[in-house]
Amino acid sequence: MRKFVAHRAKSLITNATAPLLNPHHQSSSSSNYYYTSRLSRFLTSIASDTSMASDKSTPPLTIESLNPKVLKCEYAVRGEIVSLAQKLQQDLQVNPGSHPFEEIIYCNIGNPQSLGQQPITFFREVLALCDHPTILDKSETQGLFSADSIERAWQILDQIPGRATGAYSHSQGIKGLRDTIAAGIEARDGFPADPNDIFLTDGASPAVHMMMQLLIRSENDGIFCPIPQYPLYSASIALHGGTLVPYYLDEATGWGLEISELKKQLEAARQKGITVRALVVINPGNPTGQVLAEENQRDIVEFCKKEGLVLLADEVYQENIYVPEKHFHSFKKVARSMGYGDKDIPLVSFQSVSKGYYGECGKRGGYMEVTGFSPEVREQIYKVASVNLCSNISGQILASLVMSPPKVGDESYESYSAEKDGILQSLARRAKTLEDALNNLEGVTCNKAEGAMYLFPRIVLPNKAIKEAESLKKAPDAYYASRLLNATGIVVVPGSGFGQVPGTWHFRCTILPQEEKIPAIVSQLTEFHKKFMDEFRD
Amino acid sequence: MRKFVAHRAKSLITNATAPLLNPHHQSSSSSNYYYTSRLSRFLTSIASDTSMASDKSTPPLTIESLNPKVLKCEYAVRGEIVSLAQKLQQDLQVNPGSHPFEEIIYCNIGNPQSLGQQPITFFREVLALCDHPTILDKSETQGLFSADSIERAWQILDQIPGRATGAYSHSQGIKGLRDTIAAGIEARDGFPADPNDIFLTDGASPAVHMMMQLLIRSENDGIFCPIPQYPLYSASIALHGGTLVPYYLDEATGWGLEISELKKQLEAARQKGITVRALVVINPGNPTGQVLAEENQRDIVEFCKKEGLVLLADEVYQENIYVPEKHFHSFKKVARSMGYGDKDIPLVSFQSVSKGYYGECGKRGGYMEVTGFSPEVREQIYKVASVNLCSNISGQILASLVMSPPKVGDESYESYSAEKDGILQSLARRAKTLEDALNNLEGVTCNKAEGAMYLFPRIVLPNKAIKEAESLKKAPDAYYASRLLNATGIVVVPGSGFGQVPGTWHFRCTILPQEEKIPAIVSQLTEFHKKFMDEFRD
Repeated sequence: MRKFVAHRAKSLITNATAPLLNPHHQSSSSSNYYYTSRLSRFLTSIASDTSMASDKSTPPLTIESLNPKVLKCEYAVRGEIVSLAQKLQQDLQVNPGSHPFEEIIYCNIGNPQSLGQQPITFFREVLALCDHPTILDKSETQGLFSADSIERAWQILDQIPGRATGAYSHSQGIKGLRDTIAAGIEARDGFPADPNDIFLTDGASPAVHMMMQLLIRSENDGIFCPIPQYPLYSASIALHGGTLVPYYLDEATGWGLEISELKKQLEAARQKGITVRALVVINPGNPTGQVLAEENQRDIVEFCKKEGLVLLADEVYQENIYVPEKHFHSFKKVARSMGYGDKDIPLVSFQSVSKGYYGECGKRGGYMEVTGFSPEVREQIYKVASVNLCSNISGQILASLVMSPPKVGDESYESYSAEKDGILQSLARRAKTLEDALNNLEGVTCNKAEGAMYLFPRIVLPNKAIKEAESLKKAPDAYYASRLLNATGIVVVPGSGFGQVPGTWHFRCTILPQEEKIPAIVSQLTEFHKKFMDEFRD
Repeated sequence: MRKFVAHRAKSLITNATAPLLNPHHQSSSSSNYYYTSRLSRFLTSIASDTSMASDKSTPPLTIESLNPKVLKCEYAVRGEIVSLAQKLQQDLQVNPGSHPFEEIIYCNIGNPQSLGQQPITFFREVLALCDHPTILDKSETQGLFSADSIERAWQILDQIPGRATGAYSHSQGIKGLRDTIAAGIEARDGFPADPNDIFLTDGASPAVHMMMQLLIRSENDGIFCPIPQYPLYSASIALHGGTLVPYYLDEATGWGLEISELKKQLEAARQKGITVRALVVINPGNPTGQVLAEENQRDIVEFCKKEGLVLLADEVYQENIYVPEKHFHSFKKVARSMGYGDKDIPLVSFQSVSKGYYGECGKRGGYMEVTGFSPEVREQIYKVASVNLCSNISGQILASLVMSPPKVGDESYESYSAEKDGILQSLARRAKTLEDALNNLEGVTCNKAEGAMYLFPRIVLPNKAIKEAESLKKAPDAYYASRLLNATGIVVVPGSGFGQVPGTWHFRCTILPQEEKIPAIVSQLTEFHKKFMDEFRD
């Protein structure tokens, strides 16, 4: 913070020329004193003439008078199709049998526990004990909780000043928890990690917003995003008034990321006057499910290095890999293994407790690891984090737990491993079953779900269906998704919400419904698709 | 959502004239189809000419190339003085006895549990049970938890779809919890509250940001804020690129809010071309601690109604009132009692679990109650809330608990009441003791702490002290605060962080140190102040 303080002191002096008029009495000791108020830059100076001329009266609060950036922002995974699903669900509650299905199956969003996935017992034991530490030394607690969860809760409480789990923490999160996370990153990557680089956040979304807020100055600042992309990025860029600069993933090569495409799009953007500031990579991919090869990651690092781009690495699916031939490599590990140190490349890695095998979406925990930024820039990130005081402590604790789960020899280790492996193996089977089922549908091709929680099949829709959608003022994939929902109760998100090569149609479907429901989903989907094609086949 | 959907459908048609060029193969079925992608508005169109001319290459990531709104933003309660405190704390750890005090006493921020306040047992019991529901029907649990906490946990779990406390909720928060909160508001106000008006948030700060994001279009949009104000407002307005329009509270009348001052400042702002969109009122006041009289609140409502301003009511200290002659009245209750209905005045009330007698800052729970907005505007708020998916579920549960604590007859009622009354009565005593002590200091006057958690005394500093500060490039109140910290370990925030009438000097000090420490704090403060005055007295 010291440099930031120095910087502020300097700015106070620079501002010495703009004193505020004083509406009230002035103290004898200092009139128009330059450092009177830090707020002076934000205050409108108070005119002594207060005649009642209203130049600019307040417009009525209508949609037209809202911030246009808000109006521009869209978020498909909770958009139109979900509103329709909620309406149908209400119908079913009020009037069972009113639709040709018994329940809504939400495949629109990566929300595992909403579909029946159980939380990891050890994690919840520790959270409960930290929420109510007074039971820690009661004898009944031994019967209810594992010995290592009790031990871990004590460890965590000892890391919290005054054991106060109800206090605001350091703006970056509790130091001891950041130590644990840094150790987890080191163990994962084999390269050092610094707890001072960790910013704990309420899930990954606020971390992404924070970086966009920092980097985007105007619509002339561009952020490179994959297309298809997770709509958090388009939404956040819109809210901060920047420009999304697309690079297209190549569906034909399993959603490959080609450096030639990056080069082409970067030049195109620059020719349009856009300053591209950062490159977003989502690995494993959302909505596309691919896992990048290490070689490919090296090329991306090299590209960012050469072009001076901040690399924003969305690595929230790092634990979700379903094929034995692919492995997760963090971009930081890749960069370090190429010999790039902390000073060589600005890199942010986002992680979340919402994904992985834990799927703790409701806890809103996560972190970003920020490396390669100057101390002055880091202090600005710290300042923005401070304005929201801190992320929630339960989420902070959980973020430390997922980066440091039970180890061999711990009482919980076996049950923990069984829970974890059960979830991941089941997800792999579900992904394969759904992928095969989709590839069996007429006109549908679906790349392998190597990782993450989604399939993103392409549908070649008949012209008749496209015309029908047109007459209803709907995107053809949105029309398909709404027909699917109305027929089966299955909620998927149209590809247009993520971006896709123009003229192609897709949808995103999670692999998260419980395994025993998958066969029924496959047969409903197959039956619907056949009827749909029978209705519209050209 | 339906109107929003209709609006979007219309915007899709309006955008029909701007098709995207297709960088890849085109499907036969639809080239340049107007509804190809919702993202099209954000994508830079892809130029076919990809010659390597770099018009605008990426600038190095320096502080100068960051978003200037971020640079502008300041947040004094975690600013310079806190950095100094953290440094001193480290010194004391490494080298005990290195300073003339044994510990740092953080009076800079309303963070009760960091200073030893204990959480309310019932609330923590319910949170722990909801975190680990599998223990709910174990026999040992009866011995560890109160019967009504077990019953309440069951009730809450039944309100959560699938009892999934680890799932993302509805973007506004779990419906059953919003029902409980609405019922709590009704019981408090005697007027109806609608659960659909409640947006649960991670503390009050994100709710304030959300409203600023919605209302501020440019630096020509102004938000009326009290001076002194809580720096969340100045920070949020800066981050969203608006203008803070000040109205000064009158220190001479106990930080009174005069309508004549509002009128004067509104006209002054309008004459400068500022469109004032909303009025922030903090009641009970932060940092000023006053509780508004109902009559005064009526005048404010009338003023907002007449001038078309959104009333943003920061009511997070609604439970923190320490004088028998003052009572909390929500602005919604006041507006309804004046006969204004939901359609008559746009009003947002912010509430938080961080304050009150509970002080659960680390849980990051809170809500805003949004009334008087059109359905179209409400849908925009919903959309922005959706981009962050939902607030953390523990915080949501806690927000429902503070609005619906144990009642007479519940097993926990007596212990709950004893804990609550103990905390509030002790806070009242601490406020009075500190207020009296401050008023005994030479050149210091301190208004009554009627509510909230702060005192905001005025110090008339000697000219010599002001000159000394000047030579150190410090604001005189910041100089005083740093001297106080270095001498005593007591951390207060200089008034310049909150805004004050130019030429006056203040500091904000919380009333939160534990009661047994107050006498020592008073004597340290008194001794320091005497020495300071002896050193600088003119």
